[in-house]
Amino acid sequence: MLPAAPGTLVGVSRVVVDVVLKPEISDPQGQAVLGALGRLGHDSVRSVRQGKHFVLEVDGTPDEAELKQIAETLLANPVIEDVELHLPTD
Amino acid sequence: MLPAAPGTLVGVSRVVVDVVLKPEISDPQGQAVLGALGRLGHDSVRSVRQGKHFVLEVDGTPDEAELKQIAETLLANPVIEDVELHLPTD
Repeated sequence: MLPAAPGTLVGVSRVVVDVVLKPEISDPQGQAVLGALGRLGHDSVRSVRQGKHFVLEVDGTPDEAELKQIAETLLANPVIEDVELHLPTD
Repeated sequence: MLPAAPGTLVGVSRVVVDVVLKPEISDPQGQAVLGALGRLGHDSVRSVRQGKHFVLEVDGTPDEAELKQIAETLLANPVIEDVELHLPTD
Protein backbone atom coordinates (compact mmCIF):
# COMPACT_ATOMS: atom_id res chain seq x y z
CA MET A 1 0.00 0.00 0.00
CA LEU A 2 1.22 3.52 -0.78
CA PRO A 3 1.99 5.92 2.07
CA ALA A 4 -1.10 7.85 3.13
CA ALA A 5 -1.54 11.21 1.39
CA PRO A 6 -1.14 14.27 3.62
CA GLY A 7 -4.36 14.93 5.52
CA THR A 8 -5.50 11.31 5.19
CA LEU A 9 -6.29 9.40 8.38
CA VAL A 10 -4.28 6.19 8.55
CA GLY A 11 -6.55 3.12 8.41
CA VAL A 12 -9.39 5.02 6.77
CA SER A 13 -10.40 4.36 3.15
CA ARG A 14 -12.09 6.85 0.85
CA VAL A 15 -15.02 5.42 -1.11
CA VAL A 16 -16.87 7.41 -3.76
CA VAL A 17 -20.47 6.73 -4.75
CA ASP A 18 -21.96 8.49 -7.77
CA VAL A 19 -25.74 8.38 -8.09
CA VAL A 20 -27.15 9.21 -11.53
CA LEU A 21 -30.68 9.23 -12.87
CA LYS A 22 -31.47 6.28 -15.13
CA PRO A 23 -31.24 7.33 -18.81
CA GLU A 24 -35.01 7.12 -19.33
CA ILE A 25 -35.80 9.45 -16.41
CA SER A 26 -36.09 13.14 -17.34
CA ASP A 27 -33.73 15.51 -15.56
CA PRO A 28 -35.13 19.04 -15.22
CA GLN A 29 -32.08 20.24 -13.24
CA GLY A 30 -29.71 19.09 -15.96
CA GLN A 31 -31.93 20.63 -18.65
CA ALA A 32 -31.95 23.96 -16.80
CA VAL A 33 -28.14 23.93 -16.68
CA LEU A 34 -28.01 23.04 -20.39
CA GLY A 35 -30.35 25.93 -21.24
CA ALA A 36 -28.23 28.36 -19.23
CA LEU A 37 -25.03 27.16 -20.92
CA GLY A 38 -26.61 27.67 -24.35
CA ARG A 39 -27.70 31.22 -23.47
CA LEU A 40 -24.14 31.97 -22.32
CA GLY A 41 -22.69 30.83 -25.64
CA HIS A 42 -21.40 27.39 -24.68
CA ASP A 43 -22.96 25.74 -27.70
CA SER A 44 -20.61 22.75 -27.78
CA VAL A 45 -22.35 21.20 -24.75
CA ARG A 46 -25.00 18.80 -26.06
CA SER A 47 -26.48 17.45 -22.85
CA VAL A 48 -26.17 17.80 -19.09
CA ARG A 49 -27.31 15.25 -16.50
CA GLN A 50 -27.07 16.06 -12.79
CA GLY A 51 -26.55 13.45 -10.11
CA LYS A 52 -25.20 13.11 -6.59
CA HIS A 53 -21.62 12.48 -5.50
CA PHE A 54 -20.98 10.96 -2.07
CA VAL A 55 -17.55 10.65 -0.46
CA LEU A 56 -17.49 8.14 2.42
CA GLU A 57 -14.62 7.53 4.82
CA VAL A 58 -14.65 3.94 6.01
CA ASP A 59 -12.64 2.30 8.81
CA GLY A 60 -10.07 -0.21 7.60
CA THR A 61 -10.50 -2.15 4.38
CA PRO A 62 -13.86 -1.39 2.77
CA ASP A 63 -16.40 -4.24 2.76
CA GLU A 64 -17.50 -4.14 -0.88
CA ALA A 65 -20.75 -6.04 -0.31
CA GLU A 66 -21.79 -3.76 2.57
CA LEU A 67 -20.90 -0.62 0.61
CA LYS A 68 -22.76 -1.86 -2.45
CA GLN A 69 -25.83 -2.41 -0.31
CA ILE A 70 -25.49 1.03 1.33
CA ALA A 71 -25.08 2.68 -2.09
CA GLU A 72 -27.94 0.85 -3.79
CA THR A 73 -30.52 0.98 -1.03
CA LEU A 74 -29.70 4.01 1.14
CA LEU A 75 -27.93 6.56 -1.08
CA ALA A 76 -29.97 5.98 -4.22
CA ASN A 77 -33.59 5.35 -5.16
CA PRO A 78 -33.23 2.17 -7.24
CA VAL A 79 -36.51 2.83 -9.05
CA ILE A 80 -35.14 5.90 -10.83
CA GLU A 81 -31.40 5.98 -10.14
CA ASP A 82 -28.26 4.00 -10.99
CA VAL A 83 -25.21 3.77 -8.75
CA GLU A 84 -21.46 3.76 -9.52
CA LEU A 85 -19.30 2.56 -6.62
CA HIS A 86 -15.60 3.53 -6.69
CA LEU A 87 -13.47 1.66 -4.15
CA PRO A 88 -9.86 2.67 -3.47
CA THR A 89 -7.56 0.94 -5.95
CA ASP A 90 -4.40 0.56 -3.85
CA MET B 1 -8.94 6.14 -30.56
CA LEU B 2 -11.00 3.15 -29.50
CA PRO B 3 -14.25 2.39 -31.31
CA ALA B 4 -17.20 4.15 -29.68
CA ALA B 5 -19.00 2.10 -27.01
CA PRO B 6 -22.53 0.96 -27.92
CA GLY B 7 -25.00 3.77 -27.28
CA THR B 8 -22.31 6.44 -27.59
CA LEU B 9 -22.81 9.15 -30.19
CA VAL B 10 -19.82 9.35 -32.51
CA GLY B 11 -18.01 12.69 -32.16
CA VAL B 12 -19.41 13.36 -28.69
CA SER B 13 -17.21 13.27 -25.59
CA ARG B 14 -18.39 12.53 -22.07
CA VAL B 15 -17.03 14.92 -19.44
CA VAL B 16 -17.68 14.45 -15.71
CA VAL B 17 -17.61 17.30 -13.21
CA ASP B 18 -17.78 16.53 -9.49
CA VAL B 19 -18.59 19.45 -7.21
CA VAL B 20 -17.76 18.98 -3.52
CA LEU B 21 -18.05 21.31 -0.56
CA LYS B 22 -14.72 22.70 0.62
CA PRO B 23 -13.46 20.75 3.66
CA GLU B 24 -14.09 23.64 6.07
CA ILE B 25 -17.76 24.01 5.02
CA SER B 26 -20.21 22.02 7.14
CA ASP B 27 -22.38 19.51 5.28
CA PRO B 28 -25.75 18.90 6.97
CA GLN B 29 -26.92 16.53 4.20
CA GLY B 30 -23.83 14.36 4.60
CA GLN B 31 -24.20 14.40 8.37
CA ALA B 32 -27.83 13.32 8.10
CA VAL B 33 -26.79 10.37 5.92
CA LEU B 34 -24.01 9.49 8.37
CA GLY B 35 -26.48 9.54 11.27
CA ALA B 36 -28.89 7.28 9.39
CA LEU B 37 -26.11 4.82 8.51
CA GLY B 38 -25.09 4.66 12.19
CA ARG B 39 -28.67 3.95 13.31
CA LEU B 40 -28.86 1.16 10.71
CA GLY B 41 -25.71 -0.50 12.09
CA HIS B 42 -23.19 0.60 9.48
CA ASP B 43 -20.67 1.67 12.11
CA SER B 44 -17.61 1.35 9.86
CA VAL B 45 -18.56 4.53 7.99
CA ARG B 46 -16.72 7.42 9.66
CA SER B 47 -17.84 10.37 7.55
CA VAL B 48 -20.08 11.20 4.61
CA ARG B 49 -19.83 14.29 2.40
CA GLN B 50 -22.43 14.93 -0.29
CA GLY B 51 -21.71 16.78 -3.52
CA LYS B 52 -22.98 17.07 -7.07
CA HIS B 53 -22.06 14.97 -10.08
CA PHE B 54 -22.55 16.39 -13.57
CA VAL B 55 -22.22 14.41 -16.79
CA LEU B 56 -21.82 16.63 -19.86
CA GLU B 57 -21.83 15.49 -23.48
CA VAL B 58 -19.67 17.79 -25.58
CA ASP B 59 -19.34 18.00 -29.39
CA GLY B 60 -15.98 16.90 -30.71
CA THR B 61 -12.80 17.17 -28.66
CA PRO B 62 -13.48 18.86 -25.31
CA ASP B 63 -11.96 22.33 -24.87
CA GLU B 64 -10.35 21.92 -21.45
CA ALA B 65 -10.10 25.66 -20.74
CA GLU B 66 -13.77 26.25 -21.61
CA LEU B 67 -14.92 23.26 -19.55
CA LYS B 68 -12.80 24.34 -16.58
CA GLN B 69 -14.43 27.76 -16.73
CA ILE B 70 -17.93 26.23 -17.01
CA ALA B 71 -17.22 23.93 -14.07
CA GLU B 72 -15.69 26.55 -11.80
CA THR B 73 -18.05 29.42 -12.47
CA LEU B 74 -21.38 27.92 -13.56
CA LEU B 75 -21.65 24.47 -11.99
CA ALA B 76 -20.05 25.31 -8.64
CA ASN B 77 -20.06 28.17 -6.17
CA PRO B 78 -16.33 28.85 -5.84
CA VAL B 79 -16.80 30.47 -2.43
CA ILE B 80 -17.85 27.21 -0.79
CA GLU B 81 -17.21 24.45 -3.36
CA ASP B 82 -14.28 22.76 -5.08
CA VAL B 83 -14.46 21.22 -8.55
CA GLU B 84 -12.96 18.03 -10.01
CA LEU B 85 -12.99 17.91 -13.82
CA HIS B 86 -12.65 14.48 -15.48
CA LEU B 87 -11.97 14.63 -19.21
CA PRO B 88 -12.10 11.51 -21.41
CA THR B 89 -8.72 9.77 -21.38
CA ASP B 90 -8.61 8.28 -24.88
